[in-house]
Amino acid sequence: MHSLQPVFVPQSVAIVGASSDPDRIGGRLLRFLLEAKYKGAIYPINKSGAVEIQGLPAFASVSDIPGQVDQAVIVVPPPGVASALMESIAKGVKCVVVLTSGFAELGEEGRAAQDKLVAMCREAGVRMLGPNSLGLLNVDTRYFATFSTVLYGLQPRSGSISLATQSGAFGSCAYGMATLRGLGLSKIIATGNEADIDVAECIDYLAEDPQTKVICAALESCRDGQRLRAALLKAAAAGKPVLVMKVGRTELGAAAASTHTGSLAGNDAVFDAVFQECGAYRPESIEEMLDIAYYCTVTGRLPPNNALGIITGSGGIGVLMADHAGDLNLTMPALSPDGVAAAQALLPFAVAANPLDMTAQVTSVPDGISRTTEVMLKHGNYGTVFAYLAHAGLAPDRFSSTIDRLAELRLQYPDKDLVMVMLSAHQSTEKLEAIGIPVFADPTRAMKAMGAAAKMAAQRNHLYAMPTHKLVSTRLSDVGSEQGAKHVLKMAGLPVLSEQVCTTAESASQFATQIGFPVVAKIASPDIQHKTEIGGVLLNLQDAAAVKAGFEILLARAQQHAPHAHIEGVLITPMVKGGVETILGVQVDPTFGPMILFGAGGTSVELFKDVALASAPLTPASARRLMEKVKSTALLRGWRGSPPADEAAVVNALCQLSEFAMAHADQLQSVDINPLLVQQNGAVCLDAVISLKTSH
Amino acid sequence: MHSLQPVFVPQSVAIVGASSDPDRIGGRLLRFLLEAKYKGAIYPINKSGAVEIQGLPAFASVSDIPGQVDQAVIVVPPPGVASALMESIAKGVKCVVVLTSGFAELGEEGRAAQDKLVAMCREAGVRMLGPNSLGLLNVDTRYFATFSTVLYGLQPRSGSISLATQSGAFGSCAYGMATLRGLGLSKIIATGNEADIDVAECIDYLAEDPQTKVICAALESCRDGQRLRAALLKAAAAGKPVLVMKVGRTELGAAAASTHTGSLAGNDAVFDAVFQECGAYRPESIEEMLDIAYYCTVTGRLPPNNALGIITGSGGIGVLMADHAGDLNLTMPALSPDGVAAAQALLPFAVAANPLDMTAQVTSVPDGISRTTEVMLKHGNYGTVFAYLAHAGLAPDRFSSTIDRLAELRLQYPDKDLVMVMLSAHQSTEKLEAIGIPVFADPTRAMKAMGAAAKMAAQRNHLYAMPTHKLVSTRLSDVGSEQGAKHVLKMAGLPVLSEQVCTTAESASQFATQIGFPVVAKIASPDIQHKTEIGGVLLNLQDAAAVKAGFEILLARAQQHAPHAHIEGVLITPMVKGGVETILGVQVDPTFGPMILFGAGGTSVELFKDVALASAPLTPASARRLMEKVKSTALLRGWRGSPPADEAAVVNALCQLSEFAMAHADQLQSVDINPLLVQQNGAVCLDAVISLKTSH
Repeated sequence: MHSLQPVFVPQSVAIVGASSDPDRIGGRLLRFLLEAKYKGAIYPINKSGAVEIQGLPAFASVSDIPGQVDQAVIVVPPPGVASALMESIAKGVKCVVVLTSGFAELGEEGRAAQDKLVAMCREAGVRMLGPNSLGLLNVDTRYFATFSTVLYGLQPRSGSISLATQSGAFGSCAYGMATLRGLGLSKIIATGNEADIDVAECIDYLAEDPQTKVICAALESCRDGQRLRAALLKAAAAGKPVLVMKVGRTELGAAAASTHTGSLAGNDAVFDAVFQECGAYRPESIEEMLDIAYYCTVTGRLPPNNALGIITGSGGIGVLMADHAGDLNLTMPALSPDGVAAAQALLPFAVAANPLDMTAQVTSVPDGISRTTEVMLKHGNYGTVFAYLAHAGLAPDRFSSTIDRLAELRLQYPDKDLVMVMLSAHQSTEKLEAIGIPVFADPTRAMKAMGAAAKMAAQRNHLYAMPTHKLVSTRLSDVGSEQGAKHVLKMAGLPVLSEQVCTTAESASQFATQIGFPVVAKIASPDIQHKTEIGGVLLNLQDAAAVKAGFEILLARAQQHAPHAHIEGVLITPMVKGGVETILGVQVDPTFGPMILFGAGGTSVELFKDVALASAPLTPASARRLMEKVKSTALLRGWRGSPPADEAAVVNALCQLSEFAMAHADQLQSVDINPLLVQQNGAVCLDAVISLKTSH
Repeated sequence: MHSLQPVFVPQSVAIVGASSDPDRIGGRLLRFLLEAKYKGAIYPINKSGAVEIQGLPAFASVSDIPGQVDQAVIVVPPPGVASALMESIAKGVKCVVVLTSGFAELGEEGRAAQDKLVAMCREAGVRMLGPNSLGLLNVDTRYFATFSTVLYGLQPRSGSISLATQSGAFGSCAYGMATLRGLGLSKIIATGNEADIDVAECIDYLAEDPQTKVICAALESCRDGQRLRAALLKAAAAGKPVLVMKVGRTELGAAAASTHTGSLAGNDAVFDAVFQECGAYRPESIEEMLDIAYYCTVTGRLPPNNALGIITGSGGIGVLMADHAGDLNLTMPALSPDGVAAAQALLPFAVAANPLDMTAQVTSVPDGISRTTEVMLKHGNYGTVFAYLAHAGLAPDRFSSTIDRLAELRLQYPDKDLVMVMLSAHQSTEKLEAIGIPVFADPTRAMKAMGAAAKMAAQRNHLYAMPTHKLVSTRLSDVGSEQGAKHVLKMAGLPVLSEQVCTTAESASQFATQIGFPVVAKIASPDIQHKTEIGGVLLNLQDAAAVKAGFEILLARAQQHAPHAHIEGVLITPMVKGGVETILGVQVDPTFGPMILFGAGGTSVELFKDVALASAPLTPASARRLMEKVKSTALLRGWRGSPPADEAAVVNALCQLSEFAMAHADQLQSVDINPLLVQQNGAVCLDAVISLKTSH
């Protein structure tokens, strides 16, 4: 049994802080439970000693309850929470739901009080939701443990969409929007301060919950990246779409988030990468989240493939939908020759293309719409067929024979999805949904829902593999200088040129002669980060004399511009020409651990943010996918007639870097290899900086 | 009086092809007019000789009508249209609306028949809507001249949004969606084949129509770019928001459009540029178009400025909205110190930031919501204040005192806009709308509507100035070669290096000595377009000997790789080093005339499509705006510590190129200056290609 089962499906509940006033928080909670006709035992607790609250026998303390209690919901003011918790634990509850606020969200003092609650629960083996949670709703078992006033106006419809959210207000908003549009819900839970149970663990539960078909989630932060990854992967393995919102995307948003939660919003691009690798989709709005959830619950799955066939009663709307298909990376293959023949036989005036514009002619063909639909289902290799039918659904009586025919087609072509875009009366919509056909009014929203679902399906072909063992690592040291960093990376298997820090002009020229001219000379100092800015790099030195002279020039410049820097000498390396500059990096994210960064091509990183991230460890295949996300990777592939560069060498370097990052994740803060120069044969790190965590 | 006045506001109408069957096209048209209670005279015409149709006296021909007829609506089958038109003209109608399809949209034969109708109308000075039009709706005068079945289910609500659309189906879709959500409409017109009246002219009419406050439009193509520009500018001058959709954006969409309309979709980026320059916004979906129209009709204007203040009952939703503000280039300035003090006095537990999270505390403060709103209106310099209020609107009774207070605030702060985001019952929404406050359920849609309106307002600070006179031009010739093109551009005032085509090695070395070393030598041949590919360019020739040798090498390479090319000699130019490469171009668009293109920075044009377009003629200010749209323009501004390049020289070159393009628009097809090398002082065209229209 999942450890959150008693949270979502308690057999009995004590409401600690229940009130007789059905509009006060503790009363509202009880009232909603009663109105919902929850079948389990409900025990109102109020230390006032009332013998009856809202018609139920009441108790002064949880310990007074005669029978077994699965869950205690605590709504007493903050000072009373600890003792209520203690009594509940003593009574033997399996879990507590703390709705009371006034803990970690208020500052240090609140955090300390909260930590005490956690410690009590941990010791007793009791799970805790909250504090500062808005509670939960199990629509299936009618267990409504929340005081959200949204229940005054809106009763949930039972269905298969579940929602796990940190913010209760966010949950109320999504709940309200879903309910107003008639979407059916299974479970909704607000985790609040997440002192124990977090959104990740709720996703884990919902992944195995048989009533939940689609999981929606909303995060403001994440405490345990591995737990979130594992939960998302479990949901993906269960074939359940996961739609997860994470606010704080843009600079303005992140600024707002930091005032709001008092914590840094985390690296947003890392969340993006992790969601994608774990097969979850990140909607940009609540409405989009609900659109996709609706789409997938009605079709019952993610789209079978990326290929889309469109039937339309309007050329213009057909083109609009094709525009979106282009944006969404969907394909719109042409009809097969048989399909063209079939379409022309049916609608001689129409152009048998995709989109297939039925023209006004379709109205004069018996069963025209369903027969055109059949042509598309039968002859195109379309996983999904969209039909734009204007306002056909507004006349349910006239449209009902078409629906009957579409129902037959659904059975005949079970591997393909059908979607209707039209204005539709409730009656038509409901019948179509019952046979697995989603109905949208706006063509754009329909396309976007399908595009998102198709993207999720594609991502799930390449899921992240969680590392199964920790890599053995030695302690990193002496990485503060360029040559130290490069040495460590060389040991880790990355391609680094022969180089040496020389302390005299003579030894510099000797080493240069040994490795062959031309060479590069750079000032070597842990105190000088930006060497080029002080003229600390000399390129293309052609002979021993130039190296000797260069040695003196560099020392003089260092003396002039950084008189207090500790100078280790001059670094001599071979001068490498040609090739494509790329950037490789590691960022050890506090939540998600080591992330590997790739970028390519000079100004493109800064100007166009043309970089991408992937979770370590990388496999050669995931390294290649990482490279695919970067547009400038095209520069490696024979750009403007130049010979192709050695992509395999980049893949190899990325994998070695990933292994290095995994082995030293505890010590590392970041690695920057800039550039890794990629040549026709091989690649080489020309510069590298390694930063360790300050505690090391 | 606007020449379309009789189209939109006829006093009397003949329905040619009226039928007694209210479900057939000609009957439906009449039925809708009767049901709408149109006040003008209606004359059903049917050559069957029926004396009465749907209760009205009927006539066999328009000529039989006793009185004056403003408009004839023709719905007879195609063969009868010409004679119906002739009779209508003879009767003295001011305009005809041809709903019959089967003309230019079917091919050449249909086009010829359509051209005859146009000729008849032109000769008689009669305006024509259609053919293949779905008609029009004037909600104000109850003139419903359409057979769209969408009117079976949905009656329009009167309001101030008007819609001009080429595609009738698109119009029906937008009409249906608008009406289902309760938006009020003024006029809707479908222009169909646009044989005479087009969408541009309808926009021109709506710009001066007093009932229309917001203009929506949908184009599939545009015949007269100048007319469209003029109409959009007129609407902007009238302060009316214009929301124009143009399908065929993406490759898939354009492919779909070409099968659908049988015409090229036109250069989509040109439409983008023109819409922006003329102060119109291009929504990506019908729903977005309606959201913005709703926003602007309720607030009665475009946003006063870009600054946004947010009040929220949920931290998470506040961050979500701030995320969108970031995407939409809105600003969210902090509250003033007075504002912070006022907010803290009101809500001691809240962080007085922007977004201002009211927390649950607001419920315990009397008039908490409206008083917080007042703080934002009074103390922030926010043109617009958003309030996220969860589901407050679902309890109209409890919320009504807040609405009363907000109404007072609206009067007190007339220069600022207020927008509510919440779930809301119809009753609350209607009251808020009546006091100028739009209400949205989805926070994202609300933000996007505001962002679009703010963008439109900003664009209207820099509107395109239509050219008032034609530039005097001389005929272009000899532009087929690089040196010919550069010579012409030099004459037009663009910076071009001294250069000369030399026919002997001796003259080449002499010219090189004269202009100074180093030089570049290029093979000069109208038949060799891609010189570098055959090794036809030699850089950095240092002395006379190198030039002489180079001359022979180039001739030999040309002989080898292009034995049949006509070789004019070798072009000698100074070798220029350093500087930032930019691209300048002209594309003479068949619809919109000469467009000026700017791009910068090597691979960025191809890899990131980092180019922008602007309509000629450019002013220095519009040239600078064009440059602002290109991210790589940053490379001109002291990138990575390099000295800033001469932006003014680029502005000047753009303006000269624009003048050249205006003067030769009739002859030119395109100009490509690639690169214009921009140095610290000045800029210079290093290569140029001019293409003329094939007819020249």
